[in-house]
Amino acid sequence: MSFMLICVQTAEAMYHSRFSLTVDNENNQIETELRSQLRPEVFQDFTARYKSEPRGLFHCSNGLVLAPSLVDEVTLIVKLCNHFKVPIIPFGGGTGLVGGQIYQGDRKPVIVSFHKMTKIRQVCGIENIITAEAGCTLELLQTEAANNNRVFPLSIVSKGSCQIGGNLATNAGGIHVIRYGNMRDLCLGIEAVLPTGKVLNGLSTLRKNNLGLDLKSLLIGSEGILGLITAATLKLFHKNRSISIAMLGLNGLPEAIRLLELFQNHFGQWISAFELISQTSFDFLLADGFIDRHPFKKPTKWYVLVELGTESEINLDDKLINGVALAQDQGIIVDGIFANSEKQRINLWRIRENIPEANRHKGSVVSNDISIPIASIPEFMTRTNRQLDQIGGLIINCFGHLGDGNLHYNVFAKEQQSAHYSERTKVKIRTIINDNVDSLSGSIAAEHGTGRLHSSYLHSHGDRAMVESIRTIKAGLDPNNIMNPGAIISFND
Amino acid sequence: MSFMLICVQTAEAMYHSRFSLTVDNENNQIETELRSQLRPEVFQDFTARYKSEPRGLFHCSNGLVLAPSLVDEVTLIVKLCNHFKVPIIPFGGGTGLVGGQIYQGDRKPVIVSFHKMTKIRQVCGIENIITAEAGCTLELLQTEAANNNRVFPLSIVSKGSCQIGGNLATNAGGIHVIRYGNMRDLCLGIEAVLPTGKVLNGLSTLRKNNLGLDLKSLLIGSEGILGLITAATLKLFHKNRSISIAMLGLNGLPEAIRLLELFQNHFGQWISAFELISQTSFDFLLADGFIDRHPFKKPTKWYVLVELGTESEINLDDKLINGVALAQDQGIIVDGIFANSEKQRINLWRIRENIPEANRHKGSVVSNDISIPIASIPEFMTRTNRQLDQIGGLIINCFGHLGDGNLHYNVFAKEQQSAHYSERTKVKIRTIINDNVDSLSGSIAAEHGTGRLHSSYLHSHGDRAMVESIRTIKAGLDPNNIMNPGAIISFND
Repeated sequence: MSFMLICVQTAEAMYHSRFSLTVDNENNQIETELRSQLRPEVFQDFTARYKSEPRGLFHCSNGLVLAPSLVDEVTLIVKLCNHFKVPIIPFGGGTGLVGGQIYQGDRKPVIVSFHKMTKIRQVCGIENIITAEAGCTLELLQTEAANNNRVFPLSIVSKGSCQIGGNLATNAGGIHVIRYGNMRDLCLGIEAVLPTGKVLNGLSTLRKNNLGLDLKSLLIGSEGILGLITAATLKLFHKNRSISIAMLGLNGLPEAIRLLELFQNHFGQWISAFELISQTSFDFLLADGFIDRHPFKKPTKWYVLVELGTESEINLDDKLINGVALAQDQGIIVDGIFANSEKQRINLWRIRENIPEANRHKGSVVSNDISIPIASIPEFMTRTNRQLDQIGGLIINCFGHLGDGNLHYNVFAKEQQSAHYSERTKVKIRTIINDNVDSLSGSIAAEHGTGRLHSSYLHSHGDRAMVESIRTIKAGLDPNNIMNPGAIISFND
Repeated sequence: MSFMLICVQTAEAMYHSRFSLTVDNENNQIETELRSQLRPEVFQDFTARYKSEPRGLFHCSNGLVLAPSLVDEVTLIVKLCNHFKVPIIPFGGGTGLVGGQIYQGDRKPVIVSFHKMTKIRQVCGIENIITAEAGCTLELLQTEAANNNRVFPLSIVSKGSCQIGGNLATNAGGIHVIRYGNMRDLCLGIEAVLPTGKVLNGLSTLRKNNLGLDLKSLLIGSEGILGLITAATLKLFHKNRSISIAMLGLNGLPEAIRLLELFQNHFGQWISAFELISQTSFDFLLADGFIDRHPFKKPTKWYVLVELGTESEINLDDKLINGVALAQDQGIIVDGIFANSEKQRINLWRIRENIPEANRHKGSVVSNDISIPIASIPEFMTRTNRQLDQIGGLIINCFGHLGDGNLHYNVFAKEQQSAHYSERTKVKIRTIINDNVDSLSGSIAAEHGTGRLHSSYLHSHGDRAMVESIRTIKAGLDPNNIMNPGAIISFND
């Protein structure tokens, strides 16, 4: 073992003792320093949005909230935090579902909110790119793309409030990953302030660039533990001139997978969404008034919402009708609805988009964001449903992005008593789900990120070489462990 | 500054002295150890292929060549090399063009050749994936995909000999990047032996997986400096049922870019290739007998070879004919040839594919692999041509992947005297090209990698924060600097 390796390990060991102390003195010092160097408008109130997250699983009682407008201000903040060894928590739209935005330690963190960094720095048609600052909401970005006759295809429900900095930090996924990829695939370049306060100037617009290593991809999905993304150059696409949507009823999951295979074979990259909806979703939507009536005369157990799209003018409706007829001939689907107008398209999509909100109204016992190899999804569902049946009193609402194997397998109480389930039962439910995901080579952190929710799982179940490498990289790039400490990886495990 | 930071810097400084020494004793010891632990068949002759690379710019006079068949053997080799601090040079098909496969130091390296690791571990239709070992040639992978009614879309001229381990290590690009992305985009998971000998088991088949950090993307394009990729899970696609190809003649580069914009607008993701060919390419091809006659009655200055493809059955030829007619109406193109049969398609593609070989016959003074923002390509060309004119006696053959801004701007002597250009003139030419690429926010290492050819450029021109981060990551993951030392980043700069 070399000297170098010993150094890294010694420094790692230092984290254990150093960061569990409350250092009031340093907090006072840094605040004085920050106030002397930053404009007063940068300082924000520590309001409710910074104290908890949408699921209410993580809370933080203390924090100095800063909202810089300029990269130079971010640099200054990071340098001071690094000097005083004060934790920095990056804060985007606050919509993250794994606690990545809520500090859990004993220190008073500096919370860097990006809501004032909203400049669109450039849009270029021939390069098909947009360069935007981290605080732009996804919706703003989409509007800007539309104004330039383009689309930015990331599609997630929180688009009105989530910010692209957060989308990048969590490598957001959503509905159109099957056709356009996830946030990492959609990004050509980033600008980021590294833990030492140096700026990584990587706002490339190039489609091919192999100079050096791909630090961009490493920072995307790193949830702020390696640096603060301040701006990004993202890919734009030409709009669909043709689009066609149908909702199809099926009796089983194996049929849904056969449908996917059939459509992939016939439509390939035209498939821009392939979403699974359960009859339970409809029960929830109807019960809470999200929809007035069931769109199908005779409900089936499962539904697929499929969208085809292409940039050229062709008759996609005819193509989809033919595909559906083929599926019907093969006994794959039972019934179907086609959208014949823009209004009908919106209505069909609204059903899918309202499911998370209907779930929140109902109140889940346990929510999940899992990926499973598609061929193993029926086995996962059969096995997990059977094991959860033994606990009793539970309903499963499983829905999501079947086309890329990413499902939200959410567990509810049959009666309105979700809140009454003990933490012990919740852990039991989570363990059943996680173990089944694990044994089928899936992921329990598919599109929402690792955050603080899954960091102990990463430590206990993640590949050993991966966990060790993450520690080494984190220790090297952020020697004082100031960047979102506790997210993804913890040095206190 | 913290203790940790000082440690890393001290260890970095140690490299300077430690790795410039010749350590014959360690080489004898490791060879004895390797021979005692590995099967005799693993040991290979140090033949010509390991001594130089296609361009003849880098040479190595000494090396112990090992060809393991199993991951366990790779692990054993890496552990011993790490223990004895002996450099490891990964060797794939040997087709790399930036010297990444040729060691340049004073030690006797262990060269790990992957040509015996050629297993296809799995192909799965519904997941659209193939898992293959690093030593599979690209052609073998493509054949395996075709046997399963799929395509693996990476398309580079050296497909018969290049290996997917090398394709991953260099993040290979090629002709279809415009539609399918580069090698990093095509990879879902990797298995790699890290510098300490631990195995990163990351052969995921999942399309969405945000557990931990994206080490896969970091290792892809890292040219072996962070570990040896032993296997990968790659994306497959359904075959094109429709395809249409044309070669179009244009008088200027701005017209070629207008054509790209027009076609992107009308065809979007159907564009599977958009290649630029110069009249000079035709001159070379005709002079060396690669083609019998010019396909155009009246030559133009530039040509674009465009391919449309889609998985569905539609009349793409009609679509392309309409698009070409529109371009003609707008005065963008002068003339065009459509391929009306598979044979004609092959013939049109052969013109494009033979250009590199015709260039080799001619013998270049300087070859380049550059990316430029597409809008700036005419400016780059005008400026660089003018500056090179002042040197005199040169011909430029510029061709390549215009659709993604990646061009090969190759410089030849007007008379057959390329070999007579002095190293000083070559450096002058390279400097002119590199400076213009740099000032237009391009990359001098687009699809071939950084290797040893561009490592000093990375050091002198690369973003400071990127270079420092690469050093930190390399020092952390490979504390003894055994993994392909000198490629991408050097600790002796």
